[in-house]
Amino acid sequence: MGAVTKAPPVLARVYRGPHVESAHRGSLAVVDERGRVLQSCGDPDLPVYVRSAAKPFQAMPLLLAGGEKAFRLGDAEIALMCASHGGEPEHVRGARDILRRGGFRVEDLECGAHAPMHEPSARALVRRGEKPTALHNNCSGKHAGLLLACRLLDLPHAGYTEAAHPLQRRIRTLLARHADIPESKITVAVDGCNLPVFRLPLSALAAAYARLVAGRLPGEEASSAAVRGRLVRAMSRRPDMVAGKGRFTTDFMAAGNGRWIGKEGAEGVYAVGIPPRGKGKAARAVGLAFKLEDGSARPRDAVTLAALERLGQLPLEIRRLLASYAEPAVLNARGLEVGRIEADVPIAARGRG
Amino acid sequence: MGAVTKAPPVLARVYRGPHVESAHRGSLAVVDERGRVLQSCGDPDLPVYVRSAAKPFQAMPLLLAGGEKAFRLGDAEIALMCASHGGEPEHVRGARDILRRGGFRVEDLECGAHAPMHEPSARALVRRGEKPTALHNNCSGKHAGLLLACRLLDLPHAGYTEAAHPLQRRIRTLLARHADIPESKITVAVDGCNLPVFRLPLSALAAAYARLVAGRLPGEEASSAAVRGRLVRAMSRRPDMVAGKGRFTTDFMAAGNGRWIGKEGAEGVYAVGIPPRGKGKAARAVGLAFKLEDGSARPRDAVTLAALERLGQLPLEIRRLLASYAEPAVLNARGLEVGRIEADVPIAARGRG
Repeated sequence: MGAVTKAPPVLARVYRGPHVESAHRGSLAVVDERGRVLQSCGDPDLPVYVRSAAKPFQAMPLLLAGGEKAFRLGDAEIALMCASHGGEPEHVRGARDILRRGGFRVEDLECGAHAPMHEPSARALVRRGEKPTALHNNCSGKHAGLLLACRLLDLPHAGYTEAAHPLQRRIRTLLARHADIPESKITVAVDGCNLPVFRLPLSALAAAYARLVAGRLPGEEASSAAVRGRLVRAMSRRPDMVAGKGRFTTDFMAAGNGRWIGKEGAEGVYAVGIPPRGKGKAARAVGLAFKLEDGSARPRDAVTLAALERLGQLPLEIRRLLASYAEPAVLNARGLEVGRIEADVPIAARGRG
Repeated sequence: MGAVTKAPPVLARVYRGPHVESAHRGSLAVVDERGRVLQSCGDPDLPVYVRSAAKPFQAMPLLLAGGEKAFRLGDAEIALMCASHGGEPEHVRGARDILRRGGFRVEDLECGAHAPMHEPSARALVRRGEKPTALHNNCSGKHAGLLLACRLLDLPHAGYTEAAHPLQRRIRTLLARHADIPESKITVAVDGCNLPVFRLPLSALAAAYARLVAGRLPGEEASSAAVRGRLVRAMSRRPDMVAGKGRFTTDFMAAGNGRWIGKEGAEGVYAVGIPPRGKGKAARAVGLAFKLEDGSARPRDAVTLAALERLGQLPLEIRRLLASYAEPAVLNARGLEVGRIEADVPIAARGRG
């Protein structure tokens, strides 16, 4: 090797004309609901900050406390709590509406403001001479949900973003439980939206997604399984609220139509949960998670699809629907196609004791 | 290794809290004006698309033909021809002015349009309800200069972006001469602004930058040396026209005050030319070029400064001026510092024949 850091393999190549111009490396783990690593490349146990891939787990305390009934939450609201949304008008309205149901104001959100990720919505704001607010932050739905959880659990909402806040401690416990690792193996830093961000092995993130979409788990309470099911159903039914227009996660879940859920995290993270289908081995849920070493979002969608294809989990008709994500063209300022991105995931089966 | 592609070393690490979240790999070459590789890491002979780092060479035919006098070009205009500018008002005015001197119109530019890279200028356009034009394209100065060259050399300006156009063939010849490689070793694809983009070994790009800033080269005509000197002087005197407000290349050249020129290229390319100082070995110009494997611009500035520091070419007082580029902070949406980027370049001396 020579280098201090062992290099993970190339997962995507960016071509300009006939030659590779750039390349993206990464590690990937495919894990079943029992925590068994089925396939991997690079280092499946690489500790990664999971970023926004934690969102479904961050929404759990509210639903476990009965938040769905208490605040009359529907698919749209629950999906938005799991979202890295585009800041489109419907997302902003949705986040404001969630806040209102708990008697909160925009000022109670501690996520900070950034321009909408959805470009036309960002331009519309500028045209109107308005500044982005915390509602436009891609995490506003999650934060609004956390405020409702504080209300319902009778916790102080000031400081809800602190790692020591009881709600954050609860989230960490739930994430560890689903990832099937000791809490002590999760380290915490600060995320882009000011919340604690969790660092765990890639394989544990994949396991958490397998268990998120699994049937009733051994020893699990019925209420806990029901909450998982509710989150997955909401994300599947309203993928438009989980990301937005022209976004992979939305189109990926819409095309999958219940076949999987997917969620991106910043810095090149993606996680997929594939619910059980049929009997035998297929009756076990599978989770897939990867981290691009350089943190780039550019090859993320293509890598997700290439991995599913390798796993025999991407039907041809769905691949066709998602072709623009699977083989993205590189265009220049005149709109000419001057290159393309090609993803391939050299996964190898790997048993684990 | 295992992987097909030999991994270059990590040149920059992105920390979140105490842990590395992402990393950027790359290759680097330091070459003197005689083409001798002095230091390197990764693969110094890696073929790379040099992208906008070719701009000073693309401006040569116009100046070699006497364009400076013919069109009364000053530092600002010449610097803008070597620029990846921000599309700020002064850049747009400058490009329009260059066009006018040759009797050209905006419609003659074949670079395509994109929103100004300078965010406030981009927002100002949106606020006024205007669409970006080819003048806002970061390459508009270069393209305007090419049109002037067509005028002066009596070449058809239609199709000036085609690889087979005489002007483009001339540029390729000049680039090969300065890089000191056979023209046949340069392959061509299409750049973001529709021009031919050149692919050559990283060490050849570094050599070209060494020779760009060198004194009179063996066998070189005086006029050719004068044109190089003119380009370097214009870039050094008007770094604001080579990039723009808040941009590394501008602040780097301003802080260097003649000590170096620097130019970025898309997809993680950077090239520096260090003119000769003093006597003996120091009397030889040195060029430095690197390519980040993943094509990211994020660590580029820090890697440039880390490399110069390793080479003993970055005086402490200049490093202090450029501290925000040398050790960039990672901020979240609340403006809190949640991480930092640390660059280090494990260069090793390497003789060549």
